[in-house]
Amino acid sequence: MDKKWYEKNGKNGSVVISTRIRLARNLEEFPFPARCSDDLRVRIAEKVKDAVLNSGSVISPRFSCIDVDNIPMGERVSLVERHLVSPEFISAKGTKSLLLLDDESVSIMVNEEDHVRLQVMCEGFDLDRAYEQASRIDTLLDERLKFAFSDTLGYLTQCPTNLGTGMRASVMLHLPALTEAKVMRKMGENLSKLGIAIRGAYGEGSEPVADMYQLSNQITLGISEKTAIENLRSITERLIAQELSYREKLAPRIEIQDKIYRALGILRSARLIDCAEAQKMLSRVRFGITAGLIKDIDLETINRLFVEIQPATLMQSVGKELTASERDALRANVIRNLVERD
Amino acid sequence: MDKKWYEKNGKNGSVVISTRIRLARNLEEFPFPARCSDDLRVRIAEKVKDAVLNSGSVISPRFSCIDVDNIPMGERVSLVERHLVSPEFISAKGTKSLLLLDDESVSIMVNEEDHVRLQVMCEGFDLDRAYEQASRIDTLLDERLKFAFSDTLGYLTQCPTNLGTGMRASVMLHLPALTEAKVMRKMGENLSKLGIAIRGAYGEGSEPVADMYQLSNQITLGISEKTAIENLRSITERLIAQELSYREKLAPRIEIQDKIYRALGILRSARLIDCAEAQKMLSRVRFGITAGLIKDIDLETINRLFVEIQPATLMQSVGKELTASERDALRANVIRNLVERD
Repeated sequence: MDKKWYEKNGKNGSVVISTRIRLARNLEEFPFPARCSDDLRVRIAEKVKDAVLNSGSVISPRFSCIDVDNIPMGERVSLVERHLVSPEFISAKGTKSLLLLDDESVSIMVNEEDHVRLQVMCEGFDLDRAYEQASRIDTLLDERLKFAFSDTLGYLTQCPTNLGTGMRASVMLHLPALTEAKVMRKMGENLSKLGIAIRGAYGEGSEPVADMYQLSNQITLGISEKTAIENLRSITERLIAQELSYREKLAPRIEIQDKIYRALGILRSARLIDCAEAQKMLSRVRFGITAGLIKDIDLETINRLFVEIQPATLMQSVGKELTASERDALRANVIRNLVERD
Repeated sequence: MDKKWYEKNGKNGSVVISTRIRLARNLEEFPFPARCSDDLRVRIAEKVKDAVLNSGSVISPRFSCIDVDNIPMGERVSLVERHLVSPEFISAKGTKSLLLLDDESVSIMVNEEDHVRLQVMCEGFDLDRAYEQASRIDTLLDERLKFAFSDTLGYLTQCPTNLGTGMRASVMLHLPALTEAKVMRKMGENLSKLGIAIRGAYGEGSEPVADMYQLSNQITLGISEKTAIENLRSITERLIAQELSYREKLAPRIEIQDKIYRALGILRSARLIDCAEAQKMLSRVRFGITAGLIKDIDLETINRLFVEIQPATLMQSVGKELTASERDALRANVIRNLVERD
């Protein structure tokens, strides 16, 4: 099986962790989810599941269907931690399900805010690849499901903010230098004027953690997918350049090197570490790797740790519930094993 | 030349850093320092200097005389940091001088609170050795200086708290486990009832730093030197046993190991570190060494660093004034070089 996206380091990987395309779609023969009885939701879930698993395409057998309502809470939270579903999806009431590709690069939420939320994720900065994959699956599903579409408005969605393309393109950026330089707030204000939202790693309302930011297009109406993607691409390219120039400026400073090397020292020696501290230290080490200060750890290792040390995903890895301090001890071990000296 | 006391690890060195005997003496033909004109202070300084340097004993040529009033402030502060003089001695007005043995184990302050304050210091727990050395020099000086002595009161001192033996015996203890267990306050109250004072590393009024405590006898009147020493010895032995038993209890705990290994991680990786943080981390590493958790660093190295990373002593080592952040960078380097992995 392929490595998962978060175990790889992609294009412009020093700054861009991942690229995501999300399409919101609804089945024309059913009312929007908010107006659906649970019977209808069950029928929708079955229809979508059938369309995905029996599409006749080579990709179909690689999907599995997860009955999100009937798995332990820990597994559900881990889906959020791995960015496979939205936080709202696992807490909302009513029948819903998830169709997941084996390498976790494609996830299809059924009965989230819309009937279908198709998400394609890939490592690094690769809007084209993510968009092509999303379009391919979108077309495959449309043939069997008939998505609600208006010639004047485009794809119809429950919330008008998604009307039109129904597309949200986003990139997850690691911006330790811009954060250190305290320019992110100003940056966010400017970006919103350009129709780009900047948020924490878990979407709307989430605070930035460990210098990670999600950048996404906001405009879906009166604009083509291509234009929206080009807009996000050019702004991301500019942000990458700015971040790299700040890194070059900051990396030689002893105060910064002190933070970076201490972070590595802590990751290599702690016997207990909570998730927030670990991610903060991983962020500094990641900066140190891209600045050439740390040479014996690779970005793949850090990317993977960012995801795998989260509470629910960590417990998944050992297949049992753990107390907070048991998790802190396990997390410290997992990290130490991966960042050890050569 | 011999190693200095703070570069060695002595008896019961896991808990006892050093042992000190201090004798307060006054010349019978002069008034106490507080009633001395500066002319008299100069004469006293000359007399004591002559007595020390020209005693005819083999030890005499190993002494040098430091004109404390006329050396740079940094050098003066370093004398305090190395426990060779009291903090009051370097700030007080009026002629004073210091006679110092080459290995820094004997220092004689002239015109401190008394005309002569003879101090013998040695590594580890060794009251007998320190007392014998102090007595030998005391006898040598008494022959030439005629110390003020009353058959009923004993040695006469300016402050009545020193009257009698004029002796203060003290041990410097490293008590990380008792500190961690938060029993030191109670311990201090009990000790004072037994005529033993417990203080920070720099004597009266100083707060404990990095789990270091100075234990000393308070009673000098109506008691022999031997009794005072036996009293301090038996209490110190009990404290050593208690500290070691707490260490055994605490060392297996993951919270403690986390603190210890993180401290080592920080000392091995920091590029900037201030004195207080460094001493705190050194204390934890010292605990870790004695608990058998850290095997590739020895106690001598830690003892030495405790003294050498202090601001003034650090600047002495490079022979120039440094700003606080230059010191922090130098300190981090000095430490890193000494605690590196094998």
